[in-house]
Order: sequence, then C-alpha cells, then structure tokens
Amino acid sequence: MNVVLKLHGREFPYKQPALLCRQEMAYPFIAVHAGAGYHSDSNGTKLKDLCKTACLKTMAALREGRDAAEGVAIAISELESSPLTNSGLGSNLSLTGQVECDASVMDGDGGFGSVGALQGVVNPIQVSLEMLRDSSHGTLSLGRVPPLMLTGEGGRLWAEQRGCGLCQPDELITDRAREVYLDHKSRLDGASSPAPKHRKRRREDNGHNKEEPPLDTVGAICLDGRGGVAGGVSSGGISLKFPGRVGQAAVFGCGCWAQHTPSKESRAVACSTSGTGEYIIKTMLAKECAESMIDSSLEQSLTDKFLRSERLSSVDQRFKLAGVIALNLTTDGDVHFSWGHTTESMCVGYMSHTHQQPTAVLSKMADPDKAGLTTQVEALKLSPS
Amino acid sequence: MNVVLKLHGREFPYKQPALLCRQEMAYPFIAVHAGAGYHSDSNGTKLKDLCKTACLKTMAALREGRDAAEGVAIAISELESSPLTNSGLGSNLSLTGQVECDASVMDGDGGFGSVGALQGVVNPIQVSLEMLRDSSHGTLSLGRVPPLMLTGEGGRLWAEQRGCGLCQPDELITDRAREVYLDHKSRLDGASSPAPKHRKRRREDNGHNKEEPPLDTVGAICLDGRGGVAGGVSSGGISLKFPGRVGQAAVFGCGCWAQHTPSKESRAVACSTSGTGEYIIKTMLAKECAESMIDSSLEQSLTDKFLRSERLSSVDQRFKLAGVIALNLTTDGDVHFSWGHTTESMCVGYMSHTHQQPTAVLSKMADPDKAGLTTQVEALKLSPS
Repeated sequence: MNVVLKLHGREFPYKQPALLCRQEMAYPFIAVHAGAGYHSDSNGTKLKDLCKTACLKTMAALREGRDAAEGVAIAISELESSPLTNSGLGSNLSLTGQVECDASVMDGDGGFGSVGALQGVVNPIQVSLEMLRDSSHGTLSLGRVPPLMLTGEGGRLWAEQRGCGLCQPDELITDRAREVYLDHKSRLDGASSPAPKHRKRRREDNGHNKEEPPLDTVGAICLDGRGGVAGGVSSGGISLKFPGRVGQAAVFGCGCWAQHTPSKESRAVACSTSGTGEYIIKTMLAKECAESMIDSSLEQSLTDKFLRSERLSSVDQRFKLAGVIALNLTTDGDVHFSWGHTTESMCVGYMSHTHQQPTAVLSKMADPDKAGLTTQVEALKLSPS
Repeated sequence: MNVVLKLHGREFPYKQPALLCRQEMAYPFIAVHAGAGYHSDSNGTKLKDLCKTACLKTMAALREGRDAAEGVAIAISELESSPLTNSGLGSNLSLTGQVECDASVMDGDGGFGSVGALQGVVNPIQVSLEMLRDSSHGTLSLGRVPPLMLTGEGGRLWAEQRGCGLCQPDELITDRAREVYLDHKSRLDGASSPAPKHRKRRREDNGHNKEEPPLDTVGAICLDGRGGVAGGVSSGGISLKFPGRVGQAAVFGCGCWAQHTPSKESRAVACSTSGTGEYIIKTMLAKECAESMIDSSLEQSLTDKFLRSERLSSVDQRFKLAGVIALNLTTDGDVHFSWGHTTESMCVGYMSHTHQQPTAVLSKMADPDKAGLTTQVEALKLSPS
C-alpha cells in the first residue's frame, strides 16, 4: 500500500506504522553483575565468562516469551549455581561456618518475593520468584495475605512445599569457601589483622587474598519482549556474619527495584545492587538509584544518596562500598543502561535482543586508592535498530 | 540585666535568651499505639489504660535524661509484656502454633536495629535497641559491620549473648492466643469461612470474635529532652502466618522511621505503623508518612501513598488496612502529632513533658463500612508553654 501525505501542496511519502513495528527494539534486554569489590584479573576473566553465559541463557528464554521476573531468576540461578560467586553454591560462611542465603526479586507491577538466612536451597532466587508469583495472585484461603519475606527454616519449608530444589546445607560449602572461612576465623580469634571484607583488597595483597572468592552480592535486571521489567539480587552475605543476619539482598527497596513509571520520558526502571549490605539498607540504594535513572544519573545518586548520605555520616568513608546496575526504558524505546561502583572493581555483563553476543566488562576504578571516596560510572544507550 | 534595642530611633525591650530557655518545651514527648484494626469498647478501655501506663513510664525515664531510642524501647516493652497486644506475650500464633516476633527501632541519627521471626525473647524491641546501639559504634573486630537485621535462632543467640531476657518460646503463648489459633486453624482446615484477619471485624460479629485480641502491630514515637527523635514497632504478625514470615515491623523504612531533617520548618520527624504488613512493606509506609509530616499531611500520605498506591493496584480495597502515628518537631519548638488509620479503629496514647497525665484515645472511623476505602486522621499541635 502506497500512502502519500499532502501538506501545503507538497507530497510526503508516508512511513507505514507496520514498517515502524518491524524494526528491532532494544529489548528484550538482560544485564547481570557478579559483584562489586576487588577482582584479580584471573578471577575477573572467569566471572566475565560466567556473566556472558547467564546473559545468553536468559536471552534465549526471553526470546521464547518468558517474562522479566523469570529472566532475572534464570540469570541469577546461573550465578548462584557457579562456585565462583558469593551466592548459592560457594557462598561465604557465617560465624558458625554455615551458608545462609538472601535473595529477592521485584517486578514492575509491584510484585516482590524475598528469602533471608535461607539454608539448604540450591537456588534461593527461585524461591523468591515463586513468592512473587504467589503475591501477585491475591489472597490465600481465609483471606490470608501471601508472605513477601520468609526466613530461615520456615523459608526452606515453604521452598520444599513449592518443589524448589533442596540440598543438604553443607552441599553449598565449597572447599575454597571453607579455606577462606578457616583463615578469617583464625584471624578473628587472634583479632590482630585488618578486616576480612571491608578493608581494601589491594593488588599487592598476598597470594592467599588474591585467591579469595569475590565477596559481594550478585544480581540482574531485565526487560522482556513486552517491555515488562524486573530486578533481582542474591547473596551469601558477609564472611563471618552472625547467624540469622539478613542483608540488603532480602530487604525491600534495598537490594533490587523495578517499577513501571508514569513519566513522560520513561516507561520503566530497574536496579540491582552489590556491596556492604547494612549501608545499602540504610540508604535504600536500589530504589534511589532506579528512580534516579528517570531524571538524573546513576553517578549523581551513588554520590548523593550513598557516599554523602546523612544516614551514613558516622561511617568511615573507606567502608562505603557499593556497586549498582540500573536501566531506564524510555518512551522512545531506548534502553539506557548504567553501571557504577565505589569499589575497586565490578564485573558486569549485558545483552540486548539486537546483539548477537553478550558483552562482559570488568570495570575498574582508575585510581584504586579512591575506593569508598568516589564513583566509577559508565552509561550506554541502546536504541531500536 | 536590662537590655534595650534601638531601631529607627525607637526603643524595643529585649527578651533575654535566658528567659526564652526557661519556658517549658513540648518535649520530651512520647506517643504509642496499640494497633489499628477493630477494637470492642471493653478491649479498647483496657488498651487505653495500657497506653497510658506505657506513656507514664516512658516520660519518667525521659525526664531522667534517657534518649529517644530508649524511650521507644521502654514504651514498646510495656506493650509487649502485656497479654492484651499482638506483640511479645500474647502474640498471634503461626501456622505451626508458635510465637515469632518482629521488632525494630530507628533513631534520627540513622541508627537502626531489627529482629525478625524471633522466638523465646521476652522483649524483642530490647534486642533491636541493643543492635541499634551496636550499629552506632562503628565496625566490630576485623572491620566487620554490625548486623542491622537478625532473624530466627541466630537472633535469639545474639540476644542471649547481650543479656536480653530469654524465655521458653511457649511462655509467650497465652490461653487466649491458643484459643484463637485453634479456632482459626479449624476454619482453615475447613476453609469455609472468611478471613481471620483481613475481613472487617464488625460490631455485629459474634461474641467469640469480640474477644479476639487486637491483631496488629504496636509501636511508639519519641522526642527526648535534647530534641533527639526515634520510632519503633513490634509485632507478633498475622494469625496463621507461615513460619519464618517477616512483616513490616522488621523491615527498614516500613515499620518505623525517624529522621533529623535539614528543613527550614522541621527539626525532626518520626513515624510508627500498624496494619497489613505486606502492604505496608510494599508502600514503605513509615518513611513516606514521616516525610510527609514536613510539608504535607498524614491524611494526604495515607491516601496517596497507601490507599492509592500503584504498588497496591491489584489489592482488594477492603484489605488496605493500616494505621500510623507520626510527629514533626518544628524549628519553633512545636510538636505536631498526628494519628490516622484506614481501619475501623486504632488505639493511641501520648504525653508531652508539659502534661500532668497521658491521654489515650480509641479512634474510630465515623462510618465503619469505609474501612479500607478512606482515612480517619486527627492532628494536634503542642506548643512550648
């Protein structure tokens, strides 16, 4: 069909809406992070490969029509199942030598599910996803409201009832995590050395520290083929944490965020965080950073809402360690994707529907001495092709 | 000393700062709530007396110089220790017939402590207070960050190590809570009756329901003699909740809020919530309502941020049940205190340093059929005398 518009006596060829729709949108889109902290080059290479695999698997599912929350869960399950990350298998051990996992997922419709201090579940993020699904279905029998957050033994019981994969709690402990635990524990009992987690892990660290697993929370943000949005996060928590401790990965608004936005410029935003859980909770970092993507920048929010937060005014600046991935889907169909960190490094991967292959980056702070003092932020725009 | 100011040739007597300081400020100030829901008149009378006792004990401590966070913990401990409230002793029982408590406290300096799904601790709020103190003291040995949130058995272990009062978990179960549990459980197993918690408990309910304990979270907000501010909250959670479920009372930003404000009109705000935990989490109600006290009203925030929240768009309106107490200390030294609820009733008590006696109110919605649909809000201003 040929259509010609006439305006002021001149003729203009008309671009049919059908043609417009045939262009490739920048979504589905998936981005993951394997933690903000310090990564040696050898560890970084392995983590980049892991991030790429997570993106590839997720994109395949998204192209089959899976929604954003499931995309997040597929990506994070891949990260949890790897012994390389501090989530699921290979998590840091608690003060009593156990793996206790936190995880949560949120979608743009306000759905949320979260588990804290969970033992003996292979993929904590899958339990969170099941909870999100439940909470989207209204009330249970007798009008009971489905839980948003389940912890400890109760969380494991719920996971079992929903058919989530269980394991013996010890099966999530890797040899490397046990070695690190014994080293940290002996230092704690001697209490003579600096922090196992929060001091800066510098390049000149001894060989043992170089082999430490990355110590921070992993996560993902996702846009599905319909423009649905979700964010998620999973963590084994701080090394030598007190049993029962819950970090930002399980706390609403702090570990992850997703929101359909009624703004003129934005259709949806999402965010996933990594870093020192207690400080990320106090600053509600995921919500703040996601919202900043609408009309500000990730750099601005990491600086104003985290590094300079009034609520962290008593915290030693060097310990203000966080990393964030965030996206904004604009009304034009552009996907603005940013990552940023106040740590020495952060491992990030991403893939758009228009990409043949995923990209992975080991982002490093230009001056590692400035960790905790400044931000390292990168932003890119993916447009419909 | 006589001082006279001269301005444009005219003389003005000067009010000495010393005299200004001698006036009675409206703080210390304490306000408590014993839950939003439905209260029979007989239960309401007992709860009002309890609220008054909590205010009196707290004011005595505040006049001795205790700070706001401790004031909150003293008030809430009184409510927890009473079998009348759904917190500590007399809490609702979980699906498996156990008492699991959530509690948290926050102060204006950003200090926070929270426990979730805690068993066998007499006063969960005291554990939260100890955690707040710890988190204000910087890092632990080896630079570990003190936990903000502890759950389950780990929380109890921590409480024991800090000398908080423990008990056998069953000691917190009252006869009345057990009776209600058995009734709800038999209804659940038959699954033939409406909700035990979220349907409206109407005046024409049968005698059994009239004797039900108030089912919602208790809390307190406080200003100490130096203008320090704190908020806190404590809950046994929803009847028949899944074991390990954590509600708003343990979640940062949701159950309670306190903040010193850098605003021109406000020095500090605080808030404490009650109601359906999952919906209060999704709307981060404590933070929203506290902040609204600076430049808006509690009525506005309860309406816009809760009843009309996008994040609750899929929730049946009749289940949108919440109650809030909130304060704003202005730069003039006025204390603006508000309470509001979307439930049929809410029990509130308060006392200023300038008061001889505390006041308690059983606030009722004019039209009980509008529970979940509208707000019942009252506001008062206490000025320096």
